[in-house]
Amino acid sequence: MHVSELQTPALVLDRAVFDRNVTRMAGLHPGRRLRPHVKAFKSTALARRLVDAGHPGFCCATVAEVLGMAGAGLGDDLLLANETLDPRRLRAMAELDVPVTVAVDSDETVDAAAAAGIPRVLVDVEVGLPRCGCSVDDAGRLADRARAAGMEVRGVMGYEGHVNALLDREERRAAVETAMTLLLRAHDQVGGDIISGGGTMTAELNEWATEVQAGTYVLMDTSFAPHVPFEVAIGVDATVISVSPKGWAVADAGLKAFGMDSGKPSLPGADVWIVSDEHVTFAGLDVSTGDRVRLLPAHLDPTVAKHERMWVLDGDEVVDEWPVDLRGW
Amino acid sequence: MHVSELQTPALVLDRAVFDRNVTRMAGLHPGRRLRPHVKAFKSTALARRLVDAGHPGFCCATVAEVLGMAGAGLGDDLLLANETLDPRRLRAMAELDVPVTVAVDSDETVDAAAAAGIPRVLVDVEVGLPRCGCSVDDAGRLADRARAAGMEVRGVMGYEGHVNALLDREERRAAVETAMTLLLRAHDQVGGDIISGGGTMTAELNEWATEVQAGTYVLMDTSFAPHVPFEVAIGVDATVISVSPKGWAVADAGLKAFGMDSGKPSLPGADVWIVSDEHVTFAGLDVSTGDRVRLLPAHLDPTVAKHERMWVLDGDEVVDEWPVDLRGW
Repeated sequence: MHVSELQTPALVLDRAVFDRNVTRMAGLHPGRRLRPHVKAFKSTALARRLVDAGHPGFCCATVAEVLGMAGAGLGDDLLLANETLDPRRLRAMAELDVPVTVAVDSDETVDAAAAAGIPRVLVDVEVGLPRCGCSVDDAGRLADRARAAGMEVRGVMGYEGHVNALLDREERRAAVETAMTLLLRAHDQVGGDIISGGGTMTAELNEWATEVQAGTYVLMDTSFAPHVPFEVAIGVDATVISVSPKGWAVADAGLKAFGMDSGKPSLPGADVWIVSDEHVTFAGLDVSTGDRVRLLPAHLDPTVAKHERMWVLDGDEVVDEWPVDLRGW
Repeated sequence: MHVSELQTPALVLDRAVFDRNVTRMAGLHPGRRLRPHVKAFKSTALARRLVDAGHPGFCCATVAEVLGMAGAGLGDDLLLANETLDPRRLRAMAELDVPVTVAVDSDETVDAAAAAGIPRVLVDVEVGLPRCGCSVDDAGRLADRARAAGMEVRGVMGYEGHVNALLDREERRAAVETAMTLLLRAHDQVGGDIISGGGTMTAELNEWATEVQAGTYVLMDTSFAPHVPFEVAIGVDATVISVSPKGWAVADAGLKAFGMDSGKPSLPGADVWIVSDEHVTFAGLDVSTGDRVRLLPAHLDPTVAKHERMWVLDGDEVVDEWPVDLRGW
């Protein structure tokens, strides 16, 4: 099928660019040194390519992602890099055949994991991003509590996402070092083999973590692409449905097709004016009614999560369909 | 079931507030004077309540919404208030038993509708919002073209969404009048019984349209609520999964649960700091790990579209589950 036959809006990915991103990261962090973050792409079909590229362990943000990966037989070491207190969902993970590890950062999350039969935890440490994670000085105590409850403590994790705003590479490197120094201090008290951290924006810089939790790198977006050695492989194809004599045109992809938290999607060569529920209004590009345009998302993760499938392209040929099958919670 | 037993994040609606909104609008625009816009809530179960409230005609933004409404046997007059050139989707609508009307704004959209066997159209006129719609002076010619192709031209539509930014009521009213004067001029050339326009922000002010296309009013959001006589009936319940000794807390609903184009969700009494993929970080509210919080979306439509279902509440009791079954395209 030619790409122009796809019903729009259509989430499309360029296989050649995707392959380059995967190869580049596998060179930087081979094997288990990368724990790909499933939240970015939410697709078991895509995850299978990362197993093939040598990464057998995965990182998830939701229990639905963990259960879906396990159901697809993917990953031999699944980490829920997030806290949950829900006994039903913790038990569902504890009952899986594949080894699951869960992040904990408080007495309540340690106790909930233990009560549900979760066998392994990582102590989640706050290293500068105001989100989850215990304080460095509390990490050892939580590890002791988890061990006393019969769980294996595999180590620590700490996400230095606050450094992503530092676009100067040296500033960002220094901020990663500060964050990872905190995580190493926590690790001294916690023990275990794992020091898990990082993401696409710090994958090149984080030399302290034993494994990097990057996911965006496989498909990328316009926010991260200028700052890291990975290319945008993803887009949303839309059909021009209206051309105004006043100089603008409208295509059929809008707020229901793009994550908007990091700004509007881009259309190379055009000025994107307005994004409404099912429309994008743009100017500056000479188009006719019926033409196709490809918009690039500002933020990958919430964009992918709006689509039921992504279409894999080899040039202009549609060569595969990868369901986005890990949506929801 | 008590609301605290819902898995989070959970899209919830307060039935009493919903009922008040529906009753208030049915008083303002009874029967066919309101053509509820399905794009706002994307649920046939909810639409059924609007049929019960006396509104038998509906407005859709996507073909999936039209097909889903028809499949559920809802609506005796469905309008696709949007342009499409896709022959497959146009034919699917033309083959429905329920009467369907499609918006057209160009030679291409008229010809595509006619070729697919669409029986009825509205001429979509641009009345100030830079989006779809022909120019006022081209409306009569397009109507003639549609009639010559064998289609019934039911009238005109024009969406004055650009006035939503005018928060002063009198300024907004004047801008609606300007827009509707353009639409009436187009109608003079087009003919037909229908002058379709308006939305939740102009429902009280638009005295020119024969029918109003409002959808947000049923559930509302924090952007529109201060400016119109409808109340927020919707929220996203989340569980507090982490409380920092540094003064912030984190709940388990994030970018995958909220439309972000109109800003961050609100948490009454708290200051919302950061929304990330599966987390919201807030401060100023005294909460403990495991507590529930209810966040209010800044923009309803793209928020609802991120959820598979909404839970209907009578106080703290969950009394119904309405699938969000009209997602996708």
